[in-house]
Amino acid sequence: MKNFKSFASDNNSGVHPEILKAIIEANTGHSIAYGDDYYTEAAIKKFKALLGNNIDVYFVFNGTGANVTALSTITNSYNSIICAETAHINVDECGAPEKITGCKIIPVHTNNGKITVDLIKQHVKGFGFEHHSQPKVISITQSTELGTVYTPEEIKEITSFAHKNNMFVHVDGARICNAAASLNLNLKDITTDVDIDVLSFGGTKNGMMYGEAVIFFNKNIANNYKYVRKQSTQLTSKMRYISAQFEALLSNNIWLKNAENSNKMAKLLFEKIKDIPKIQITQKVETNGIFAIIPEKYISIIQKKYFFYIWDEDKSEIRWMTSYDTTEQDIDNFSSFLHNVIV
Amino acid sequence: MKNFKSFASDNNSGVHPEILKAIIEANTGHSIAYGDDYYTEAAIKKFKALLGNNIDVYFVFNGTGANVTALSTITNSYNSIICAETAHINVDECGAPEKITGCKIIPVHTNNGKITVDLIKQHVKGFGFEHHSQPKVISITQSTELGTVYTPEEIKEITSFAHKNNMFVHVDGARICNAAASLNLNLKDITTDVDIDVLSFGGTKNGMMYGEAVIFFNKNIANNYKYVRKQSTQLTSKMRYISAQFEALLSNNIWLKNAENSNKMAKLLFEKIKDIPKIQITQKVETNGIFAIIPEKYISIIQKKYFFYIWDEDKSEIRWMTSYDTTEQDIDNFSSFLHNVIV
Amino acid sequence: MKNFKSFASDNNSGVHPEILKAIIEANTGHSIAYGDDYYTEAAIKKFKALLGNNIDVYFVFNGTGANVTALSTITNSYNSIICAETAHINVDECGAPEKITGCKIIPVHTNNGKITVDLIKQHVKGFGFEHHSQPKVISITQSTELGTVYTPEEIKEITSFAHKNNMFVHVDGARICNAAASLNLNLKDITTDVDIDVLSFGGTKNGMMYGEAVIFFNKNIANNYKYVRKQSTQLTSKMRYISAQFEALLSNNIWLKNAENSNKMAKLLFEKIKDIPKIQITQKVETNGIFAIIPEKYISIIQKKYFFYIWDEDKSEIRWMTSYDTTEQDIDNFSSFLHNVIV
Amino acid sequence: MKNFKSFASDNNSGVHPEILKAIIEANTGHSIAYGDDYYTEAAIKKFKALLGNNIDVYFVFNGTGANVTALSTITNSYNSIICAETAHINVDECGAPEKITGCKIIPVHTNNGKITVDLIKQHVKGFGFEHHSQPKVISITQSTELGTVYTPEEIKEITSFAHKNNMFVHVDGARICNAAASLNLNLKDITTDVDIDVLSFGGTKNGMMYGEAVIFFNKNIANNYKYVRKQSTQLTSKMRYISAQFEALLSNNIWLKNAENSNKMAKLLFEKIKDIPKIQITQKVETNGIFAIIPEKYISIIQKKYFFYIWDEDKSEIRWMTSYDTTEQDIDNFSSFLHNVIV
Repeated sequence: MKNFKSFASDNNSGVHPEILKAIIEANTGHSIAYGDDYYTEAAIKKFKALLGNNIDVYFVFNGTGANVTALSTITNSYNSIICAETAHINVDECGAPEKITGCKIIPVHTNNGKITVDLIKQHVKGFGFEHHSQPKVISITQSTELGTVYTPEEIKEITSFAHKNNMFVHVDGARICNAAASLNLNLKDITTDVDIDVLSFGGTKNGMMYGEAVIFFNKNIANNYKYVRKQSTQLTSKMRYISAQFEALLSNNIWLKNAENSNKMAKLLFEKIKDIPKIQITQKVETNGIFAIIPEKYISIIQKKYFFYIWDEDKSEIRWMTSYDTTEQDIDNFSSFLHNVIV
Repeated sequence: MKNFKSFASDNNSGVHPEILKAIIEANTGHSIAYGDDYYTEAAIKKFKALLGNNIDVYFVFNGTGANVTALSTITNSYNSIICAETAHINVDECGAPEKITGCKIIPVHTNNGKITVDLIKQHVKGFGFEHHSQPKVISITQSTELGTVYTPEEIKEITSFAHKNNMFVHVDGARICNAAASLNLNLKDITTDVDIDVLSFGGTKNGMMYGEAVIFFNKNIANNYKYVRKQSTQLTSKMRYISAQFEALLSNNIWLKNAENSNKMAKLLFEKIKDIPKIQITQKVETNGIFAIIPEKYISIIQKKYFFYIWDEDKSEIRWMTSYDTTEQDIDNFSSFLHNVIV
Repeated sequence: MKNFKSFASDNNSGVHPEILKAIIEANTGHSIAYGDDYYTEAAIKKFKALLGNNIDVYFVFNGTGANVTALSTITNSYNSIICAETAHINVDECGAPEKITGCKIIPVHTNNGKITVDLIKQHVKGFGFEHHSQPKVISITQSTELGTVYTPEEIKEITSFAHKNNMFVHVDGARICNAAASLNLNLKDITTDVDIDVLSFGGTKNGMMYGEAVIFFNKNIANNYKYVRKQSTQLTSKMRYISAQFEALLSNNIWLKNAENSNKMAKLLFEKIKDIPKIQITQKVETNGIFAIIPEKYISIIQKKYFFYIWDEDKSEIRWMTSYDTTEQDIDNFSSFLHNVIV
Repeated sequence: MKNFKSFASDNNSGVHPEILKAIIEANTGHSIAYGDDYYTEAAIKKFKALLGNNIDVYFVFNGTGANVTALSTITNSYNSIICAETAHINVDECGAPEKITGCKIIPVHTNNGKITVDLIKQHVKGFGFEHHSQPKVISITQSTELGTVYTPEEIKEITSFAHKNNMFVHVDGARICNAAASLNLNLKDITTDVDIDVLSFGGTKNGMMYGEAVIFFNKNIANNYKYVRKQSTQLTSKMRYISAQFEALLSNNIWLKNAENSNKMAKLLFEKIKDIPKIQITQKVETNGIFAIIPEKYISIIQKKYFFYIWDEDKSEIRWMTSYDTTEQDIDNFSSFLHNVIV
């Protein structure tokens, strides 16, 4: 099956036409490998235009790579990293953060994927006590794995708490564009301006083929990043092809338009199915994901036509994701199908 | 500087038109992420057609990722891995193999990048002695980092020795297509048929944008590979774009034509410059690299026009690489330039 | 201050006289290093007499070393290890398990330090799903860090569940002798006979100077242990001095007498203070620890005379430990002091 | 076989009577665990009296633990550590340094176990080049694994070179007392005064039961050591027993007398056997080891009576070690035996 539309994940989608075009245009002659090229310089410039000049920008292959290299750079192996129990770094990276950073990951239970100072402060202690992993990083996901969004104020509360404790804040921004779109804010408002330290900026889930950026807002801590990236197998040789994609993504507001569309399509789907009595929406639909409990017997029927993932088997909770290329027609088709099936 | 031709590395080249075309064609609709898609199945089929059906094939982002995940899968951290001191895993991966496998890398001095049983057997001992890292892998590079090539007989001698000692043989095949082209042999002749255990099959240096394959010839050892790949940050979500590239590379003998061209261009360059008295060629030109000692004063002059790497500063030894897209005109221009400069 | 009696920890105590005598007696002439000696053979024989012949016994320096080497031997880095959130491996080893095994530690909340199948089963899933760390070990502490004890039936339920899921059960037995004494059972009843796979057997907290044993009940999994131990820095050269201690500990029931005394002294202390209104005992006193909430203002007053640790600052909960050398007089003195202070 | 005298290793010997006495005397009442005790303070004071006040001193269990924790503290995983190919960290620690530091170990061939700036400088390059492990530590062994000794001038040349390149010098001093005795110098002359950065100070091979010290001469780099020690499983709970041993070792010049005796006995053995025609001494006898090539047929005959290790099977080279408790009578007996056997 080569062609279909699904609601499985925004990474099932393909490459945005403008981004593919940028790749094609970059495919001329030779470029110096490993980032010392025209396209990388141009892409970094675009990032600085959006986030301010006082940042360091590096490109890697994928989200796990971005998270792991970012975290490695700002930790020693005897540190701990605190995050929501639903965080990608906690449940979806097969232990890569522990393996590569050597750190302890401390998962915190939340109801909506968002941690707060109140929820985590019990783990921010034991400083100087050699028997305990020393707390060093608070990692949040924006937008969260449950589709919810941190406000700038919520982030600021976390960064203030972290910095007061000599800790860093990492943001897993695999879907940060969706968060900005949802908040109707600039990317700068939810990163630079709320004092985060390092960001995994997602490209793949927002219309790129591959490629994520690691952005340091605290330049002192980025000094060794290039060695960490290389040793973590995340340095691409033909860097221009990631860079060209990022330059295109950040041009003409494509990053925003893509995110806005996927958010809007999720909202539309929500509107069209929220009244189906047997569907119980479990999280606020703030970005491009819908989490819902539906009777188990319908799941496999729906999956036969539309592939998607079961989120929590015990609860019969599923996840539907829209993406930058989801159309109103896709939503109409899918919601009609759901109305027909779930009766 | 966006457009130029260099002799710095085959990874400075761009993407072969047929491979780019395959990417573009794959860019329709949605595909299930992480490899459960049409393109991945098709690419694996192509590999089996070339190497036999009794293999396991997995795709990763880059060469360091391929080497490290392959080695992790077949070792425990208390093992040692023996290789040439010039091996990519020893000198060009910023310690990724040690960091991620935990193993000791034992480098062996060679004159031409090729190890032999004689050269390594002093390190294959101490089995059962807990104070020593236990020898487990012999890793060779084909073609080598010095452009030389192992014959099938040479490989067979190494695999026989390894298997007699309950060890595995890994081949770093970042340029294995160049080796096959040089030997005028099938890929199967220098892999499956000489009993190697695991191969890093290079795509990027032979005309792909990104993507390498890890191929296990001994299926028992591949069981856990998928976890190792994920935990090592080497699992791409939009797998179809690597797979489509490999399918194209392995179709219409593009892998071979590309390799043949780069080998031929190196040979041509060699013929055109071998008589310049002040250039001393230091390695046999068997594939697509030329190693030469040239007086230091000329190096920066040449680098100003043609970017390339100094191989050994102490010896004033440089490396020139041709690639799949090097043309006779490129060689003519470069050799004329060299003749004019080095006088 | 060289001489005092405290209730801080059983590892504040010294060496039992019989064990010190064994060290002195072993101090004659030379012994082959690293375990190929008379004393090690004799100590292993004693372990087999207690636990059955079908075990593999190895000695290490300390408890963290025992846990980490045991866990490393039975895991790959992409595995997860499930334990109580209060487990020593989770909170008191500065992340050594994550760093050295590479695994994810999944902490489970309990009220009394004891995990159950019900509490952990939500984490035993995702087998075959490469995005998740693969569950491989359930680690329990016997007696627990909260002084409570697993019955043989409770352990059996866990080992059955584990083995059904192709997982192993590790027991952190830093205080396993206290557990056996508390249950009035043989060591074999709570290890071999309930099918645990590997045990960290504690010596230091029960009257030894240093030294713990790692015991494999499933011999197939111990094959590589000696390399893991050496690579984890836990192989002592002058092994006879650990072995001689263990031989003494396991002779004349010293292991049991020591544990019985410390348990009895904790019970006695409990009886003498349980009616102090402002002391709220928070855990059952089943072994040699007492956990109690006491008004904050008394803590530093008591600590000035008797050093001990605050267990949970937020709750004003403290921990008092008795040890093999605690006397009735010590308890009388301490309880009188408490009665005088906490008014 | 409980009692014998061998020439296998100085770690086959037992505990010096004065050191054992110190252990016995320390065995009174309770002491706070993990180093906050009277004995540790006293031992550190002794070290400062010998080496100067500007040092940080920590105790660990064994030599591999000392080396690995010292190296971990001063490196990042993307660094390389340069040492003689005969170094304990390279061949006798089962890859613990690679596993725990993540660094690349670069072994350098020497004839006598001693590296020089000339021998290593080819590996001190590539600074800033992310593809190469970044050189950070030069590790030397004093006295070397081949029984030879670095003069202060030789060390100074290495530390100057290292510091000029922003690198550290680590000394594996498992037998540093033998080196000082051999040079007829103070410990300070070959450590503090020649600007080394960190020292693994050996206790076990010089008459202790267990225990080594890690000493930082550059206090800025020791800040995180206590976490590294704990996470590396090298923190003992009943610290007083290591500390009391060190205090005894450093009192009444026992460290020196022990080293002098073992050195003297090696010299004596050398004098008594150097004229046996079939014994070819291969290294200068500067401390307590004798390396000799002897015809293979004699080796097993001698080993039957006196256990020792074959150093290099290919060359039929063996190693005999004397220790602090070797007597002239032992040497007489052994040399007579050798004269009788090797005919």
